[in-house]
Amino acid sequence: MSPTKGKVIKCRAAVAWGQSKPIIIEEVEVAPPEGKEVRIKIVCAGLCHTDVSGWNGGFPILFPSVLGHEGSGIVESVGEAVTSLKEGDHVLVFCLPRCHQCPSCQSSETNLCRQFIDAFYSDNKEVSTRLACKGKPLYTLLNSGTYSEYTVIEESMLCKVNKEAPLDKIVPLSCGVTTGYGTVVHYAKVKPGSTCAVFGLGTVGLAAVMGCKLQGAKRIIGIDVNNGKKDIAKKLGVTEFYNPKEHNKPIEEVLVEKTLLGCDYVFECSGVKEVLESAVASCRLGGGHCVLVGAPPFGENITVDPYKILYGCHVSGCILGGYNAGDVSQLVDDYLKKKIVVDEFITSNLPSTI
Amino acid sequence: MSPTKGKVIKCRAAVAWGQSKPIIIEEVEVAPPEGKEVRIKIVCAGLCHTDVSGWNGGFPILFPSVLGHEGSGIVESVGEAVTSLKEGDHVLVFCLPRCHQCPSCQSSETNLCRQFIDAFYSDNKEVSTRLACKGKPLYTLLNSGTYSEYTVIEESMLCKVNKEAPLDKIVPLSCGVTTGYGTVVHYAKVKPGSTCAVFGLGTVGLAAVMGCKLQGAKRIIGIDVNNGKKDIAKKLGVTEFYNPKEHNKPIEEVLVEKTLLGCDYVFECSGVKEVLESAVASCRLGGGHCVLVGAPPFGENITVDPYKILYGCHVSGCILGGYNAGDVSQLVDDYLKKKIVVDEFITSNLPSTI
Repeated sequence: MSPTKGKVIKCRAAVAWGQSKPIIIEEVEVAPPEGKEVRIKIVCAGLCHTDVSGWNGGFPILFPSVLGHEGSGIVESVGEAVTSLKEGDHVLVFCLPRCHQCPSCQSSETNLCRQFIDAFYSDNKEVSTRLACKGKPLYTLLNSGTYSEYTVIEESMLCKVNKEAPLDKIVPLSCGVTTGYGTVVHYAKVKPGSTCAVFGLGTVGLAAVMGCKLQGAKRIIGIDVNNGKKDIAKKLGVTEFYNPKEHNKPIEEVLVEKTLLGCDYVFECSGVKEVLESAVASCRLGGGHCVLVGAPPFGENITVDPYKILYGCHVSGCILGGYNAGDVSQLVDDYLKKKIVVDEFITSNLPSTI
Repeated sequence: MSPTKGKVIKCRAAVAWGQSKPIIIEEVEVAPPEGKEVRIKIVCAGLCHTDVSGWNGGFPILFPSVLGHEGSGIVESVGEAVTSLKEGDHVLVFCLPRCHQCPSCQSSETNLCRQFIDAFYSDNKEVSTRLACKGKPLYTLLNSGTYSEYTVIEESMLCKVNKEAPLDKIVPLSCGVTTGYGTVVHYAKVKPGSTCAVFGLGTVGLAAVMGCKLQGAKRIIGIDVNNGKKDIAKKLGVTEFYNPKEHNKPIEEVLVEKTLLGCDYVFECSGVKEVLESAVASCRLGGGHCVLVGAPPFGENITVDPYKILYGCHVSGCILGGYNAGDVSQLVDDYLKKKIVVDEFITSNLPSTI
């Protein structure tokens, strides 16, 4: 049994004291898990654009906050109602809860538990937290808080993974790679021979490219304003690369021309308002599917030509590849079997001696 | 054999000489059909909002024009390449062509033949026409022109129907009823027990209501600014009626409250920009489906909250219920078997002695 079980753990965490304020390494206190909560020792954490958006006001969060929602770790102890995890289990954090009772959880068509949606749209974001610093409660981004050496997360937001998988390598499966890859193979189910466009070639977009290639897409068009993405994108499957800055007309016009009526599938992985609009406009009339994957700034609307939709472009969105936490163990196994790559998505490593 | 076969027919037609200009009954000349064309004697024509939009510049058409795309008639003669119709056949006009060769026609997922899309977006809308008046070619709205005693239409845009069906009653199946009903039962395939909202209770919306009821929807919410629609809407299946003018907050907020997270299905049948926006906003987070059915003014964009889509509302569109011309014969049979009603959609009859 863990020597810390039932006790408050003192450890270090990166604390954001306010919106856009410096993030400071502090000593924090992590109370034991209760009910369906699990306390985990974080081994590695990733940095996702959503962490930045939460920090700088892109969407509303509570401060002071421990950011971080991508993470791998080892279960230190569990609450008395936890049934699927035990001390010593290796886990990946998956920032979407599952109440198992709402209409969404009881449907096979969505992974968007109403608990998550209600919390997102609630004016009262006061939630219980097991973390504290200097006598104040510390909230955690997306109820995760992986930028702490220990954190407490709800059981439904953790995926038990094969212990053979290196915890420092599989972190991108906690969110970024899973989101991009899952959107293509699990949610949109791209058909062989398709023409796909991927806007924004960060981790999410590159993972979408990997998915398109595995699904047998014929053309995979990568779009990014950074030419430095071209090589890795081509390595993962992009067949054509476009930098919108190098064209004297809107990129959607370029794509519609190059593909006749538009792309069969468009994956928007940038979260930039204008790019969302270009993505919808690049979709094929008469049956194309545009999937919004990147999270845009909250409260900012996009404009869309309704004829594009009336004449047969589906527009939809997908969070975390449409997966539930439990599905990620299969992705970890696919990584171990070299069916998918993950190492390539790690751009830099920071030591834990922060 | 028709005594007029191979000859130019002189008859009367309602001619719109220019955008928003008076529509005048003129004597016109209708040349014999060629190739895959069919000349039909129009028995009845319907008036659809799309006719008005074409006339007043809502979307671009060529003038002088014979409007009208809803119509029933009898085949007078056929071009030499026509294979599926012969003189004397009863037909309904269906204003969507089918080339049978483009990717759309070869897919079971869309009825939007590229020929139709290309024509809609083409700058050069010059098409061959068999109608003329005072020495000038007369174009026909949506290549139909049912506001003429005779017109010439492509074979793929005609549906042969049971001769037992009264041609003066089934005209709404030419477009309006088929569009609303088909969108619900054939395209969206509403599931039993669903909560559906229908915006705009004209023929298309009321036919959508009829479809929702037949599909076993639990709640069918009708929305219209005209309270005069309430009775017919309730007769066809509406379980709740809302007039947006009678609420002091946006109707989408009312609907999201009344349905918790929004409606499972939303059918936008008004074609009004602001209503399109309300329709999308009324859709359920986590798996709702909003279908645009009404044709909005061309060139006017709509504004959408991308989080609505990111968090699981599908937005798509559908023309003519997703059907092809041939499918309409089944709807006519369903009418004869009293599975669906059509007579209720006829609000007034005008004599042919125009």
